[in-house]
Amino acid sequence: MKKRPFGLAVAQLGPIDKEESRASAVQRLHEMMREAASRGADMVVFPELALTTFFPRYWMTEQEAQARYFERTMPGPETQILFDTARELGIGFYLGYAEISAQGRPYNTSILVDKNGDIVGRYRKVHLPGHSDHKPTAPFQHLEKKYFDVGNEGFFVWETMQANIGMCLCNDRRWPETWRMLSLQGADIVALGYNTPSVNIHWPEPTHLRMLHHLVTLQSAAYQNCVWIGAAAKAGLEDGSHLIGGSVIVAPTGEIMAQAQSEDDEVIFCQADLALGDTFKQHVFNLAAHRRPEHYRLIVDQVGAGEPLGRAPVD
Amino acid sequence: MKKRPFGLAVAQLGPIDKEESRASAVQRLHEMMREAASRGADMVVFPELALTTFFPRYWMTEQEAQARYFERTMPGPETQILFDTARELGIGFYLGYAEISAQGRPYNTSILVDKNGDIVGRYRKVHLPGHSDHKPTAPFQHLEKKYFDVGNEGFFVWETMQANIGMCLCNDRRWPETWRMLSLQGADIVALGYNTPSVNIHWPEPTHLRMLHHLVTLQSAAYQNCVWIGAAAKAGLEDGSHLIGGSVIVAPTGEIMAQAQSEDDEVIFCQADLALGDTFKQHVFNLAAHRRPEHYRLIVDQVGAGEPLGRAPVD
Repeated sequence: MKKRPFGLAVAQLGPIDKEESRASAVQRLHEMMREAASRGADMVVFPELALTTFFPRYWMTEQEAQARYFERTMPGPETQILFDTARELGIGFYLGYAEISAQGRPYNTSILVDKNGDIVGRYRKVHLPGHSDHKPTAPFQHLEKKYFDVGNEGFFVWETMQANIGMCLCNDRRWPETWRMLSLQGADIVALGYNTPSVNIHWPEPTHLRMLHHLVTLQSAAYQNCVWIGAAAKAGLEDGSHLIGGSVIVAPTGEIMAQAQSEDDEVIFCQADLALGDTFKQHVFNLAAHRRPEHYRLIVDQVGAGEPLGRAPVD
Repeated sequence: MKKRPFGLAVAQLGPIDKEESRASAVQRLHEMMREAASRGADMVVFPELALTTFFPRYWMTEQEAQARYFERTMPGPETQILFDTARELGIGFYLGYAEISAQGRPYNTSILVDKNGDIVGRYRKVHLPGHSDHKPTAPFQHLEKKYFDVGNEGFFVWETMQANIGMCLCNDRRWPETWRMLSLQGADIVALGYNTPSVNIHWPEPTHLRMLHHLVTLQSAAYQNCVWIGAAAKAGLEDGSHLIGGSVIVAPTGEIMAQAQSEDDEVIFCQADLALGDTFKQHVFNLAAHRRPEHYRLIVDQVGAGEPLGRAPVD
């Protein structure tokens, strides 16, 4: 039995300075968690890499990055308060951070924590953007492919807090495969954190396109997969590099139901009717009735773009 | 060597009355083909089922539907003029129609015709919407699943007219699998015809959402797959049933570059820079660098929505 409506909050973060401590960043998250709970939230979505600056913009050794920016335990000493407060207030949360696994591998990770303060799910980012080499002429680096391993676990939905909740991270949202993996597991809500630079380091892309792509992608994904999306940015001018804001809650109708107004710490909230997606799931996007996987083989059989396969009809 | 820019025209049709003859409908297409050519079009995109009314809204026998609304030859006596004019003016086209195959099977089909008037490609619609049973309480029927077989050939891109051109039809556009099958074949342009009722027969969906879904879906698909899209509606009040317009040309940036203003016969045009998608193909959507098919298995291994597969992390 699903809880309807579901109090969905998104807590956008303003910039985190390179020198800002974990404790300070966690304090900001903690304040927003209390605000979200006071507004009736069942869950609050925090950004990707929400404990530090977006360090993949800097060139350094993997060892240095791991020493400064990664977590070896979760909860750890600084983050324990978030778990304690979740249990105290009865609010779940999604949190992105840089993880060193038990096996010593580095991942760009998010966790899903329930109202008891227990970690019920973990997601390790699959679609790492950027590059692993040093680009001396770029205005900044985007070294996610250097500092992180590709997520080794895949895409999942968890049944928790009386809803089916999926997770993804940042660049994953641009890949329709992400969303389909989650709707095939019956997701009602997808939580997403992101850090999206305003500047494309590869070509002078008009800045307004970055926000257009973000919003259009989420609206389309919510609609086509009949899910609510809670998307939390780290935003604003961080160490001289600008990140877009635009944290949003999007309904399965494809409509934006709440949007952040600032590029700073800001909570947005929506009483999400989880049944709103049901009519889409039963008709236009009844996956069982309409999907034709026999015609989708290339999606798993081929990685990159190949040649046109069309031939002239023979009868 | 690709031709850049590519003159891309979309010819929206107003309603086709149930009693309107093939010759009359073809005459309307023919006039728009001449207009498109005069504006410098390399190709003009016509709608889905562009020769008749949108007959899946009516309950009848398959035999009656096939006798009244399907084509057994293409070109046929009435449509030959389109092929002759294509050759005369040096303009390619995409045309949707109801096809009886050489094997006697019914398909919702589009063809791609080059500047020599030759059929270079054929697409048979895969994602048939609607139902096959009679719904006596619905305001109208949506019987594509009754009158058509599911396309038996799949999704293709053709190298023609100095571009890589893919095809799909109407409801296909709502399925991200469609677009990925085409970008995996290096599509530069995707041609799409549609007939989209303004009214959802299953629930009182606000009418404005139909246009939102149409536009957001195309903008997202164009961006995520780095393609130009030419999307042609049959629009307006047809036999008492309203179809949305909103024919558009969308760029790989996700921007709408041209949009029809009317719900009647109308040509829109854009000099499409096919190189505009290249920077996306090389970086953010470099499929070979970023896609992870090992994590996409459910997309082909499962048809409908299943249960959440997420478990608590064990380390």
